[in-house]
Amino acid sequence: MHSFKQWVEKNRERIQRDYFTFLRFKTIGTYPACKSEMEACAAWLQHYLQTAGFSSRLIETSGHPLVWAEHKEAKESAPTLCIYGHYDVQPVDPLELWLSDPFEPEVRDGQVYARGALDDKGQIFFAILAVLAFHELQEKLPINMIFCIEGEEESGSQGLSDVLPDLRDQLKADYLLVPDFGLLSPDEPAISLGARGIVTMEVTLTGSKGDLHSGCYGGIAYNPNRALAELLSKLWDEEGRVQVPGFYDDVNAISEEERKLYSYRETKEEYAEKFGIRALGGEKEVSLMEANWFRPTIEINGMSGGYAGPGFKTVIPAQATAKLSCRLVPSQDPKKIAEQVGSFLTSRAAAGMDVNYRVLSAEPAFRGQAESRLAEAAMGAYTDVMHRPCHRILSGGSIPIIAQLQEMGLRDVVGMGYGLPGDQIHAPNEHFDMDRLSKGILTVAGTIQRLR
Amino acid sequence: MHSFKQWVEKNRERIQRDYFTFLRFKTIGTYPACKSEMEACAAWLQHYLQTAGFSSRLIETSGHPLVWAEHKEAKESAPTLCIYGHYDVQPVDPLELWLSDPFEPEVRDGQVYARGALDDKGQIFFAILAVLAFHELQEKLPINMIFCIEGEEESGSQGLSDVLPDLRDQLKADYLLVPDFGLLSPDEPAISLGARGIVTMEVTLTGSKGDLHSGCYGGIAYNPNRALAELLSKLWDEEGRVQVPGFYDDVNAISEEERKLYSYRETKEEYAEKFGIRALGGEKEVSLMEANWFRPTIEINGMSGGYAGPGFKTVIPAQATAKLSCRLVPSQDPKKIAEQVGSFLTSRAAAGMDVNYRVLSAEPAFRGQAESRLAEAAMGAYTDVMHRPCHRILSGGSIPIIAQLQEMGLRDVVGMGYGLPGDQIHAPNEHFDMDRLSKGILTVAGTIQRLR
Repeated sequence: MHSFKQWVEKNRERIQRDYFTFLRFKTIGTYPACKSEMEACAAWLQHYLQTAGFSSRLIETSGHPLVWAEHKEAKESAPTLCIYGHYDVQPVDPLELWLSDPFEPEVRDGQVYARGALDDKGQIFFAILAVLAFHELQEKLPINMIFCIEGEEESGSQGLSDVLPDLRDQLKADYLLVPDFGLLSPDEPAISLGARGIVTMEVTLTGSKGDLHSGCYGGIAYNPNRALAELLSKLWDEEGRVQVPGFYDDVNAISEEERKLYSYRETKEEYAEKFGIRALGGEKEVSLMEANWFRPTIEINGMSGGYAGPGFKTVIPAQATAKLSCRLVPSQDPKKIAEQVGSFLTSRAAAGMDVNYRVLSAEPAFRGQAESRLAEAAMGAYTDVMHRPCHRILSGGSIPIIAQLQEMGLRDVVGMGYGLPGDQIHAPNEHFDMDRLSKGILTVAGTIQRLR
Repeated sequence: MHSFKQWVEKNRERIQRDYFTFLRFKTIGTYPACKSEMEACAAWLQHYLQTAGFSSRLIETSGHPLVWAEHKEAKESAPTLCIYGHYDVQPVDPLELWLSDPFEPEVRDGQVYARGALDDKGQIFFAILAVLAFHELQEKLPINMIFCIEGEEESGSQGLSDVLPDLRDQLKADYLLVPDFGLLSPDEPAISLGARGIVTMEVTLTGSKGDLHSGCYGGIAYNPNRALAELLSKLWDEEGRVQVPGFYDDVNAISEEERKLYSYRETKEEYAEKFGIRALGGEKEVSLMEANWFRPTIEINGMSGGYAGPGFKTVIPAQATAKLSCRLVPSQDPKKIAEQVGSFLTSRAAAGMDVNYRVLSAEPAFRGQAESRLAEAAMGAYTDVMHRPCHRILSGGSIPIIAQLQEMGLRDVVGMGYGLPGDQIHAPNEHFDMDRLSKGILTVAGTIQRLR
């Protein structure tokens, strides 16, 4: 490990320069306008993996290109480790709240501010740097390896999902490592053994052929904004329980085993203080840990109808739209949930409203194995780097493709990473730091060494 | 009247050219970015009124300039007519639904498409053209006249309201004509003897210091989108009645006299067919006429929170906002209504949400006098031009400043105009036509002649 530390130290400037280059690509996967930036970023990654001694290529998909890289020169009995990550990032709205350009990384108080600084450019980059270090230190990789880096994680992984069946032979691997997770606390390392599933949806209510003057038609036409507010308000009762029939049917109670296995730190008060959250909206009588990891949710991620610009416009809009997402726990079927929510929204809207319901993505939750060799290797590597015992945690977030990768044989999954709740992923002023990035390099390198 | 018809015929091309020049100014009064276009348009109008023989000037206000023009050369016993209108227009969103540039007038099927084609550039312009015709025909104006054309009608008339007290002496007039109204039906003329008042408001709910990841905080933090939907849904009961305590307290029942005086044509079915409205949202058991003219309303004109762009963003936004407006009937006090709605919104939001409520404008309804000399003159002029009896109607819309003008002595108000419900004012593809514009010129000219 000593030589790796020296390599990181010696290459600090170059690492930051390459990291910034990666962050500058405007890779908002969900924006059609970003297509050429997505392609440029994928090509850059392919080249970067080549310089790390990997045989790499781009695989076209129905969406953005998949970066695929292999290094299979270990002895025949050696296991194969697949590392999955993504180069697409979340949109940057509301842009006006960023203190610097989201695609021009800026260091302030030791933190690197940029969209994707952590999620997931920063984290997949430290994994790539780990194998670059092996290459440049002329340390032979003790295992076979695959990198699978996609461009649609933030929007449901459709392209990767489509091409995966064709990659079945090349994808034979014993372990799946996913550097897209976080720590338990700033000085407590943790591996992540699961995440929630996700269903994303859009519902649009149409009330008339076109926008109407609210003086001439106010109090006559049913305003789609009102219909949408009424419809969405029916999704929860006063106790915060989702009212979609069947929504909780397949949810299992948290077991004593699970309660012992996983570590959870934050209390509701800490949450409230850290994020200025004064109102808690989840199910009452449910602990923070249970709410975050063991209960499904439905959230309104976007709501829009009528005029939202400066000043005022006295309009009754023709349409109002909401973007909704559910987070699912294991044993919930995303397609079934999508249908249940759809039939709820369609049947409970005000009579006469035209309801257009569209499912954008639907992926199940996943769980890894608590006692696997990969889990042990990663936990050992973490402890080496951070000098503290490593915990097991889950994530309330989602990585849509993992359940499908597990179905294809990659059952042994471990999530790792150096994210912290305050890093503002998916929000303005996302940030990460060179110190955590360096620890990430050493942790991935240590995990690889321990799998030999 | 014959010579006026000839003048309109002879100047058709020039009228259209000048009308288009007026429409090209991007005068969205509520947009700070339109400030210089507002000033340019006001200067153009001032100059145009000079060419019509008026002594004109611009009056600075706290908002956009007021165009003020006088022609006081009639004999001492002659009455004074004030014509009020506005050169500001509504915002153009959603821009993608316009079939042509809203600020580059285009003629399609005989209709002129542009923002402001009717409201109110088209209508104030025919009034100006009427006095230009007098001037060019060397017909002495038989009455004294004032034009008062403001730039903030669509956003509450604050600037004009502020300077009116200083204009008290210059504003002495017997009649107020407001060419910002419509016909009863395409071949049935009507004068408008009143409009509803308006209160515009904005309410913002804040749930946290910044945007949150919906995986990590979903089911924990109270989502401001949900809180907003729940809050807004409480504004009405299932019968469409507004639930704000006291909201209907000062509303008078429609009298038999009023029922006889005013003509109303459309049925709910016609409404539904014309605008594709399948859901009626107003108070049940209330006729269309009563809903439109004699009942107050509250409408959600805009609703926004979280991500509304292409694709998806899994965010719990820090804030969600709604723009609301109330339409008021005579005897309702706008300040009292604004307070009632504010205290409803503030007290009924989910506990812990930070509620920020802001009143943008608050103006009462007005009523003109059914049997005045001005009403008779306008009705006679309409019948001359359209060869049909002229009706009396009201408007469900609002002209914020009129009640204040009445308080300053201009009690005798008549609204007129050639608008029709299908003209798409405040909506994409607003349009008007040269034929109705020409009739407008003749109707205003005829009204002036009849007041001699």
